[in-house]
Amino acid sequence: MIAVQTIQAVRQELGPGRRAGRRVGFVPTMGALHEGHVSLIRAARRECECVVVSIFVNPTQFGPSEDLAGYPRTLDEDLRACQAAGTDLVFAPAACEMYRPDAVTTVHVGKLSEPLCGAFRPGHFDGVATVVAKLFHIVMPDRAYFGEKDYQQLVVIRQMVRDLDMPVEIVGCPTVREAGGLAMSSRNRYLNVEQRRQALRLYQALTEAQQAVAAGTRDVATLCDTMRQRILAGGPARIDYVTIVDAVSLEALETVDRAARVCVAVRIGDCRLIDNMPVDVPAAQG
Amino acid sequence: MIAVQTIQAVRQELGPGRRAGRRVGFVPTMGALHEGHVSLIRAARRECECVVVSIFVNPTQFGPSEDLAGYPRTLDEDLRACQAAGTDLVFAPAACEMYRPDAVTTVHVGKLSEPLCGAFRPGHFDGVATVVAKLFHIVMPDRAYFGEKDYQQLVVIRQMVRDLDMPVEIVGCPTVREAGGLAMSSRNRYLNVEQRRQALRLYQALTEAQQAVAAGTRDVATLCDTMRQRILAGGPARIDYVTIVDAVSLEALETVDRAARVCVAVRIGDCRLIDNMPVDVPAAQG
Repeated sequence: MIAVQTIQAVRQELGPGRRAGRRVGFVPTMGALHEGHVSLIRAARRECECVVVSIFVNPTQFGPSEDLAGYPRTLDEDLRACQAAGTDLVFAPAACEMYRPDAVTTVHVGKLSEPLCGAFRPGHFDGVATVVAKLFHIVMPDRAYFGEKDYQQLVVIRQMVRDLDMPVEIVGCPTVREAGGLAMSSRNRYLNVEQRRQALRLYQALTEAQQAVAAGTRDVATLCDTMRQRILAGGPARIDYVTIVDAVSLEALETVDRAARVCVAVRIGDCRLIDNMPVDVPAAQG
Repeated sequence: MIAVQTIQAVRQELGPGRRAGRRVGFVPTMGALHEGHVSLIRAARRECECVVVSIFVNPTQFGPSEDLAGYPRTLDEDLRACQAAGTDLVFAPAACEMYRPDAVTTVHVGKLSEPLCGAFRPGHFDGVATVVAKLFHIVMPDRAYFGEKDYQQLVVIRQMVRDLDMPVEIVGCPTVREAGGLAMSSRNRYLNVEQRRQALRLYQALTEAQQAVAAGTRDVATLCDTMRQRILAGGPARIDYVTIVDAVSLEALETVDRAARVCVAVRIGDCRLIDNMPVDVPAAQG
């Protein structure tokens, strides 16, 4: 495994393999790697001849009051995890390598950036789309791997790739969960024991909603009320949103009448947790 | 020469040559080709093994009151001109091939899109940047050729490529002029004889400004007043702007004290004409 810090080095390292027809699988991360990231790297390893991981805490996707400065940085451990999972090349640039002071270009994925986390984190998905576009241009992957845990991010990236005709296939991978169901997240390490117990309520609320839809409940208001109660009964928590959206357009639904996604965002202590699950209904019969 | 209409066909045609290491030179156009376009194709032909021209009247860079419907479309002649200039592949897609109805992604080149033509054509440079990003992802050129006649467009594209780390080299080529100095433009065909004579005033005003700077005049207000008078003395014309800007940042200057560009945009009849020239002063001596 090779680790490099410059764009030029990435291009030099990947050029010969690309010309020889080796497919490049790419896993963009902000480091603080956990089993969720590792599952993405393993998927890339299975499907591609060359596996690239980027580790970059992207400042432009953090709001002014968010946790950029405190975001966990664990580069040595991350490099070991990358190596163990079969990575060929790690790209870990400094912020000044990625952003010149005079940079003014942004990629904006219209209305998909506005709902859900976009409403609570203005500019977040512009930051995500822009840095992922840059990373795609640097790495030029054949496939790129994203976790379903950040569901809106996955949908935004898919749309960007389709809209801008980027020559890369986006692969969404299932959320990896801790025992008990808490979705793996680099921010979980901020939770104390009590908060971690409370965070399990997200998983419980989502699975109960999934079961309720499977049992025939279709009214989104009813489903969301039950989820909110389940989450708040666990202790102090601030709910950013509990909602069910169209799985592709992210439009809020009133009735679960198509492929949909239950999405929640909750603040517990200083930690903002998000999670989601699919709720699919069989196609209507004519 | 091959002409195709789909993104898939472009990728199929270019794949083998790219893998064999043939450099691709790309000239994006809106058709209605003239000697200016031909000079770009010839430059690509000299420098690259494979020359691709796109012909696409991009709807997203026209404002609602602009000349999208009336923009000249001369595909048969364009194909002959492409062939004569040494083109290998023409990509001439329909609008529905380039834009799905649900597309929501735009590329925005911040403050470089705002001054000059950006102030008179809101959204124009978002449309330009977005379609050029798409075309770059489709064609994946090593070099792309743009005329200096659309100077702000050239600066916007250069900045986009740098900011988004696109793996393409942008080559700016000198404006090609008719006898008398009128800059070649697809829109010149709208001019009648009288308007064409009047349009020569743009060239005269620009060259006089260049000469005045060379002779020592540095005050932008003085230079621009003289240019405005020269243009308006030619007959009825509406000046959108006459200005001198920093050649890289496009910021308006009060004094010509660095590499700068004199830029004019004038409406004559129904036709909006733009033109520009460099005005460089020797670096200050310490």
